[in-house]
Amino acid sequence: MKPNSRLTLFGFVVVALAFATTIVRAQDPLLSWNDTATKKAIVTFIEKVTKEGSPDFVPVPERITTFDNDGTLWCEKPMPVQLYFVLDRVKALAPQHPEWKTKEPFASILKGDYKTALAGGDHALLELAVATHTGMTTVEFEQIVRDWIATAKHPKTGKLFTEMVYQPMLEVLAYLRANGFKNYIVSGGGIEFMRPWTEQVYGIPPEQVVGSSIKTRFEMRDGKPVLVRLPELNFNDDKGDKPVGINQHIGRRPIAAFGNSDGDLQMLQWTTAGSGPRFALIVHHTDAEREWAYDRKSSIGRLDKALDEAQARGWTVVDMKSDWKRIFAWEQ
Amino acid sequence: MKPNSRLTLFGFVVVALAFATTIVRAQDPLLSWNDTATKKAIVTFIEKVTKEGSPDFVPVPERITTFDNDGTLWCEKPMPVQLYFVLDRVKALAPQHPEWKTKEPFASILKGDYKTALAGGDHALLELAVATHTGMTTVEFEQIVRDWIATAKHPKTGKLFTEMVYQPMLEVLAYLRANGFKNYIVSGGGIEFMRPWTEQVYGIPPEQVVGSSIKTRFEMRDGKPVLVRLPELNFNDDKGDKPVGINQHIGRRPIAAFGNSDGDLQMLQWTTAGSGPRFALIVHHTDAEREWAYDRKSSIGRLDKALDEAQARGWTVVDMKSDWKRIFAWEQ
Repeated sequence: MKPNSRLTLFGFVVVALAFATTIVRAQDPLLSWNDTATKKAIVTFIEKVTKEGSPDFVPVPERITTFDNDGTLWCEKPMPVQLYFVLDRVKALAPQHPEWKTKEPFASILKGDYKTALAGGDHALLELAVATHTGMTTVEFEQIVRDWIATAKHPKTGKLFTEMVYQPMLEVLAYLRANGFKNYIVSGGGIEFMRPWTEQVYGIPPEQVVGSSIKTRFEMRDGKPVLVRLPELNFNDDKGDKPVGINQHIGRRPIAAFGNSDGDLQMLQWTTAGSGPRFALIVHHTDAEREWAYDRKSSIGRLDKALDEAQARGWTVVDMKSDWKRIFAWEQ
Repeated sequence: MKPNSRLTLFGFVVVALAFATTIVRAQDPLLSWNDTATKKAIVTFIEKVTKEGSPDFVPVPERITTFDNDGTLWCEKPMPVQLYFVLDRVKALAPQHPEWKTKEPFASILKGDYKTALAGGDHALLELAVATHTGMTTVEFEQIVRDWIATAKHPKTGKLFTEMVYQPMLEVLAYLRANGFKNYIVSGGGIEFMRPWTEQVYGIPPEQVVGSSIKTRFEMRDGKPVLVRLPELNFNDDKGDKPVGINQHIGRRPIAAFGNSDGDLQMLQWTTAGSGPRFALIVHHTDAEREWAYDRKSSIGRLDKALDEAQARGWTVVDMKSDWKRIFAWEQ
């Protein structure tokens, strides 16, 4: 072999290897995940239930997954996103409500003192929810949400809230979808607060969103039918009511469920109690630097009982800090 | 031209025509429909909203349709099918309830006197619903329905209830599905009474079924999570609450809706009030010979206000007798 031809061969091998690496990289559906046991558990589950002829094969119509939203698909700190919506709506509506200047919890919000406003607990929250989420038609509310979410930004990062979604979880959603799964959101957040943007942000259409809701009433207004949003809770999609909501909306038991807090525990129990292969995953917020670190003692997104149960049952727990190469798409 | 070749040409034309007719027949998705204005209206709507580049084009994700069930997709006479389920369940459960022998409405049912039993009106019906539909888990109830529907027969025709579905409507469902539509059932019937069989009978999966429901509660039983069916109404999917149920489950406005009674009026109003092309259809039961003839004065499936509105608004009304070549698949 002449030196020249050896060089050529060497060059070929280099190019071929680079090409092969590109293919492998392009084929990896979970690029933002480090190559840890967590990533492997996700891939192994999806591969085994989609492999025809395998004893674990699951037909496409039964490939149902459910995802919590706050803290599982997007950031819930320092406060859940919907709470920022409430605060902004109070400010936007204030000119029509001069009485709010002296009435709590509105007065504190208008002064920018959110802490005092929210110190009123559930009662204050309910009052705020009624003032900002009810009275209008469903069509009007959808537009209000669309307008707000298009520009509303996270107070710490300055990014749009829709950019505060976890890139590794977007990859899981897309990976599942590419394998014939139907992904549902099952969140304690408002169903009509999520639906206007989940398709664009998560690829999850409105009919695959389950959430908390208020009652609505059909009315004819000027000869046109409308649904009016009433100041009455219809469904609180949390804890034991998550399986209730899943059964009500989907009518099938999911084969995989993803959550991050004790509010998701019953959904994960319900999902894994079915026969055949099942998958349960908990996002554990362990990265105080790139996101937030919180679990057993957090008032928002508390993860205590569900963490114990995950360990006892061998559910997959994401250690954000070590499992996620990046958290947000804009990080790099 | 020699006589022989003329004969050959004639033969060719005959064969070609026969072949062409076969193609046309095979391509007709609505074989059980007579070639009337009703059939044409259905075909015209589907063709225009699926034609790319047309001003009426509707993208696939927005091709949502809703169908009432009783009287629209299957027979509701002499009584709605779910009522036969109730009566059969009372008989099946009677050995565990010796007190029913002397307690109305159960006593009359056990004697076969349904008329007296149902004379108790809503109160009697509620008592029967609670006795037959609640107390068990959702998984248990699903199995009860599956077992019953597998063998239960229509009292007049002797056919399985699942054979009492309207062949022309099955063709509409399949035609829509083949054109990228997602068909939903939106019925006053029980959501968990329908889901176990709608996929097999209508090609409509559980997650596309909206119906009346009772409340359920999450519980752990022997360490396993269950949903228990409670004796409390959750949602009555009728009249103005049909749009409420549509909004709750689907979160999009359908572009086409199909019903047969005043209970469907608001669903049709809600559907047609959206912008862009819309389609509303009412099945008018006009065939006393092959099925039943009833409308303005019927206690079951009354069609009065909705018939007036259909005429005023130009909605499509199926005249069963003249529009449907056959009603049931087993007719010929």
